[in-house]
Amino acid sequence: MKQIISILLAVLLFPTAYAEELSSPNGKMTLQFNVENGIPVYQLNLEGHPIIKPSKLGLELKDAEELMDGFSLETTNFTSFDETWTPVWGESSTIRNHYNELEVTLNQASTQRKMILRFRVFDDGLGFRYEFPEQDNLIYFVVKNEHTQFAMAGDHTAFWIPGDYDTQEYNYTTSKLSEIQGLMESAVTPNASQTPISGTAVQTALMMKTDDGYYINLHEAALQEYSCLHLELDDENMVFESVLTPDAVGNMAYMQAPCITPWRTVIASKNAGEILLSHITLNLNEPCVYETTDWIKPIKYIGVWWEMITGKSSWSYTNLPSVKLGETDYSETTPNGTHAANTQHVKDYIDFASKHGFDAVLVEGWNEGWEDWFDKSKDYVFDFVTPYPDFDVKELHAYAKSKNIKLMMHHETSGSVRNYERHLDTAYQFMVDNGYNSVKSGYVGDIIPRGEYHYGQWMVNHYLYAVKKAAENKIMVNAHEAVRPTGLCRTYPNLIGNESARGTEYEAFGGNNPDHTTILPFTRLLGGPMDYTPGIFEPDVSQYNPDNNSHVNTTIARQLALYVTMYSPLQMAADLPETYGKHLDAFQFIKDVAMDWEETLVLEAEPGDYITFARKEKGSDNWFVGRTNDEEKRTSEISFYFLDSEANYIATIYADAKDAHYKTNPKAYEIRKVVVNSKSKLKQTCAPGGGYAISIIKAKNKEELKGLKKL
Amino acid sequence: MKQIISILLAVLLFPTAYAEELSSPNGKMTLQFNVENGIPVYQLNLEGHPIIKPSKLGLELKDAEELMDGFSLETTNFTSFDETWTPVWGESSTIRNHYNELEVTLNQASTQRKMILRFRVFDDGLGFRYEFPEQDNLIYFVVKNEHTQFAMAGDHTAFWIPGDYDTQEYNYTTSKLSEIQGLMESAVTPNASQTPISGTAVQTALMMKTDDGYYINLHEAALQEYSCLHLELDDENMVFESVLTPDAVGNMAYMQAPCITPWRTVIASKNAGEILLSHITLNLNEPCVYETTDWIKPIKYIGVWWEMITGKSSWSYTNLPSVKLGETDYSETTPNGTHAANTQHVKDYIDFASKHGFDAVLVEGWNEGWEDWFDKSKDYVFDFVTPYPDFDVKELHAYAKSKNIKLMMHHETSGSVRNYERHLDTAYQFMVDNGYNSVKSGYVGDIIPRGEYHYGQWMVNHYLYAVKKAAENKIMVNAHEAVRPTGLCRTYPNLIGNESARGTEYEAFGGNNPDHTTILPFTRLLGGPMDYTPGIFEPDVSQYNPDNNSHVNTTIARQLALYVTMYSPLQMAADLPETYGKHLDAFQFIKDVAMDWEETLVLEAEPGDYITFARKEKGSDNWFVGRTNDEEKRTSEISFYFLDSEANYIATIYADAKDAHYKTNPKAYEIRKVVVNSKSKLKQTCAPGGGYAISIIKAKNKEELKGLKKL
Repeated sequence: MKQIISILLAVLLFPTAYAEELSSPNGKMTLQFNVENGIPVYQLNLEGHPIIKPSKLGLELKDAEELMDGFSLETTNFTSFDETWTPVWGESSTIRNHYNELEVTLNQASTQRKMILRFRVFDDGLGFRYEFPEQDNLIYFVVKNEHTQFAMAGDHTAFWIPGDYDTQEYNYTTSKLSEIQGLMESAVTPNASQTPISGTAVQTALMMKTDDGYYINLHEAALQEYSCLHLELDDENMVFESVLTPDAVGNMAYMQAPCITPWRTVIASKNAGEILLSHITLNLNEPCVYETTDWIKPIKYIGVWWEMITGKSSWSYTNLPSVKLGETDYSETTPNGTHAANTQHVKDYIDFASKHGFDAVLVEGWNEGWEDWFDKSKDYVFDFVTPYPDFDVKELHAYAKSKNIKLMMHHETSGSVRNYERHLDTAYQFMVDNGYNSVKSGYVGDIIPRGEYHYGQWMVNHYLYAVKKAAENKIMVNAHEAVRPTGLCRTYPNLIGNESARGTEYEAFGGNNPDHTTILPFTRLLGGPMDYTPGIFEPDVSQYNPDNNSHVNTTIARQLALYVTMYSPLQMAADLPETYGKHLDAFQFIKDVAMDWEETLVLEAEPGDYITFARKEKGSDNWFVGRTNDEEKRTSEISFYFLDSEANYIATIYADAKDAHYKTNPKAYEIRKVVVNSKSKLKQTCAPGGGYAISIIKAKNKEELKGLKKL
Repeated sequence: MKQIISILLAVLLFPTAYAEELSSPNGKMTLQFNVENGIPVYQLNLEGHPIIKPSKLGLELKDAEELMDGFSLETTNFTSFDETWTPVWGESSTIRNHYNELEVTLNQASTQRKMILRFRVFDDGLGFRYEFPEQDNLIYFVVKNEHTQFAMAGDHTAFWIPGDYDTQEYNYTTSKLSEIQGLMESAVTPNASQTPISGTAVQTALMMKTDDGYYINLHEAALQEYSCLHLELDDENMVFESVLTPDAVGNMAYMQAPCITPWRTVIASKNAGEILLSHITLNLNEPCVYETTDWIKPIKYIGVWWEMITGKSSWSYTNLPSVKLGETDYSETTPNGTHAANTQHVKDYIDFASKHGFDAVLVEGWNEGWEDWFDKSKDYVFDFVTPYPDFDVKELHAYAKSKNIKLMMHHETSGSVRNYERHLDTAYQFMVDNGYNSVKSGYVGDIIPRGEYHYGQWMVNHYLYAVKKAAENKIMVNAHEAVRPTGLCRTYPNLIGNESARGTEYEAFGGNNPDHTTILPFTRLLGGPMDYTPGIFEPDVSQYNPDNNSHVNTTIARQLALYVTMYSPLQMAADLPETYGKHLDAFQFIKDVAMDWEETLVLEAEPGDYITFARKEKGSDNWFVGRTNDEEKRTSEISFYFLDSEANYIATIYADAKDAHYKTNPKAYEIRKVVVNSKSKLKQTCAPGGGYAISIIKAKNKEELKGLKKL
């Protein structure tokens, strides 16, 4: 009733007023929807302030009439939802899913086709998607282009990477929207597989800040059976429009009604931390579909990996120019002497992992085929089950088991996806038979079938196929080079990680921007955790490989912070054991830090500048704080208000030394132990490219506090 | 020594004489090879008569220097080979492989790359291929185009179908080479999946006849890990050049040295029958790779199929516009009442098969998904294991077993090949678990992954993958819409058939040319058997489906002949049991005819006009003769010279009645039983679109001959 009166008044008083309006539970986030001249249009305001100006919706179809206009509003349905659910792992032990929903059914008179738009308005944003109900006049259709607009209210500052059908491994550029076009060329740095889209296309999640201090984030949720979203900017009008990823013949998505698209999301707040803490992406995904999840657990691991990334060792066993699986007799070849994945070396890693309480050891380069895996468009590149002669599967399985360590499997597919799928069953069975319960998969290089892209519907389907099949075998998946996540880990929680952005490995390929990790949580991490693989204690890569002059653009203290600021249930201590051996005091933080959280707070946040997270360990009273800092020297000021008011805690603070600098003095850190309580405050200088990490352990008794000063 | 003298003399006396010459064992077929101006050139003569005029060889590579010229001859190696081998099944119990071989190693000085050409000259033709040995300067390469020429010595008559990346289901056109261009447009009739190549491209095997009576056939052998060959005609110079099938991005083949191409073959004779009897294609393939082959046997079958092809019944259980596997609950749907693959109906077929001594019953439409399988580019279209509600797998398995009948599985993939491969293991296991040992597979419609073609390297790889995996399960494969065979059945004898040409089903889609089966053995059947599915006794399709006015362009007698003239270890009696019931006298031939042969002779042959085969049943003294006739009324004159000179035989002759005609009076046939011996002769009138079939059973004693006249 109230709505009818509103509409009548609106129509009478405000001829351009909208037909439908929906507010968030707290009333501050407001959606307006209308059909204007047959075109569906929406807009979003936060406390009356425009977040999304009037923006059109629609789809263009191949060989069929468009779904762009000629619509009339048929029915509307308003509902509300408020439920709290428990993730298998996450940044908090429970998540509230609270929204108001508007379901709009549109009818296109000329074709008698129906399209539903579903809007969910949360206190911190909006999710909406297209739905196509079962109907006579629309069954099979091919999306030629989606035309979802996000009209910006100004020339915002954006933190962006180039739109690309194949890679996200770019440094972020911070610029005005109007500057994107001029900066695109230099932003497109080389990659093993890349297909940049245009002069003004960027990837999602896209983070922005308006001149008047609003933070806006655009992304998608629940990307399944569809093509990945990018945003193309009309930089005259400041309107973003959806750009999907084509297949080999230029089509975006093949659909069969009844069907839905992924959710398009807008997260907005005057507070940057609220963006980081938003649960919209997860909440828009379906609940977990697995009957049991006790086999899914966080993993803290080390790995035979960084030494190959730096070039100190090789993945391959020989230096043959090419091999043929099943034909090349490795027992007859000359080993190159630099193959890291050999039995003894892996045992050394297992020993180290066991000694320091880690869960697993990743081993890359264990299997036949690494001689010519890269950039050859090789179809039958790996079989995922045949080890090199110096990698004893059975012996290492037994040894790891005896040390209560799991080996983490590695499936580099080389982008040869038909080959991977052909071997997937035997590859997973091999894992089960040999004690592996987690796999890091990779898709380096152009996709085979040739013509497909990493982010097209074809590959989106594959990534999920591999995850579901893994679940049948109680295997956890950490997929690198896959499409960036969109919250599917709620539905399929064995997807415990992706890389799908520029990670620590690039520090050895020339370095990442020192502010990279002050942006990633606002962008890449919106959709799911990232296997960032931090923990580098030796930033001078030439120490490992004299031919590699790359520098890891970080201080050690900031590396520790990343275990808190880069949320992931999968955390690697990426450096070499011998390097950790030189800094066991700092390494202690990595050993102590939790991976699964009761609660998460953002103490300080400014995208591109700094982020400070505080997180409470699930099932304990302990807290961990992490601060990542950009290239400026800054002072962090935080309060420990979140601690139990009645208790004392021992805080171990791992911070940059006074003169630390990511470039010139990265290894200078200081560790101090102090007593803190809920009234404590900290003022901490952070070096350029620095930060700090704090473990905060509740004191059991006064004895423990002896000899420690109060902060 | 002799060669050196020849060369010296040749060079002195004949400045344009060739460096290398190779003759066949009987000396009549002669190859000449030379490197002219750095270009490899070959030519072929039969008794001095040019079959292939000087023709160039070479390959164009992508992003690498061509392998077209700049060659010098490095080494030559002449060898001979003479071996007789035993096929698992075939047109004769043993096959002699007798050839002289020339291996030429070429070096391209500018790139220091080596290319080997291997030529094998048989008495009836030539096979040659390119080989790329292991070498430093050529490892991974992409074939952009192959430039193998076949220069014709005149404007020959050709029996051709349009070059096409996706289908062979065209009627043959008989014309001069010079007329191809003008006739191409009308030759390209509609198909569910087709990609015609150009105005002058034709498929192989290409059959030709020269004005002076030489028969020439061009094809390929052992097509593996490469792209299918077509021939593009330069109709000014009468030179054919190879055209391969591209992938989604326009490349022909991805290679890794050491590697080889398929064999390119030229079969030539002054006798048409020798083309039909040539074993070159099989002899160029590798020997059988399977350890055991006792599970591979010829199959005579009937099937729940023709009634759907004619439109009398449906493959689908309902008439729903679309379904989703695993979501559509078929038990809740309304059956359409026309679903043929139901338990009772299949039992009737099993009864009929058992009663008449057949081996198997094919059932199409048994599984969920047929409502929307066609032309929707549907990815998850079938799962190959879930039956419709009215098809009881277990009950039919038991019933068939009790009647000593096998059910033949049907895997229609709809061209959705990733989907097929994902289900292949479970699909084959389902077969094993339910008593199926053979499968008819199909690839109707455009290929998914989209952009690939039926005959590209990608699909060539898939077809063989499915065959090899079938062998692991002791399953025989009959693949329809697959690439036309090239003799791989020698290596993988569980590939017991393909359709891969326009078959009997097209008689219900408008009709085949009445001379179609007088051409197919010269073309399609050169590479392997065809599941032509003959045995239509009711040529008026409207008798089954009033809405289908198609006419089967054949007499009944010719249908019987096809069991002899269309060699296949897999033979279907395609019509409905009730129709056979009306002509049990004619049906007797189908019951009697063998499928596996001791020996095969060609009594009469003229491509496009008529073919008469005589074949001796393996392991018996019986012979079968079949004659297929074109649209002209003709008289066949044969002698029974091939019979044992000391014996008498009872010949049952199934012939066209005097006034029979494929169009106006197809069902008029006469059956007579006579006594024949090696001195007998037959003069038999064949109707337009007619023919005859003869079973010749050795008489055990004089009693059997009582009452029978001598021919």
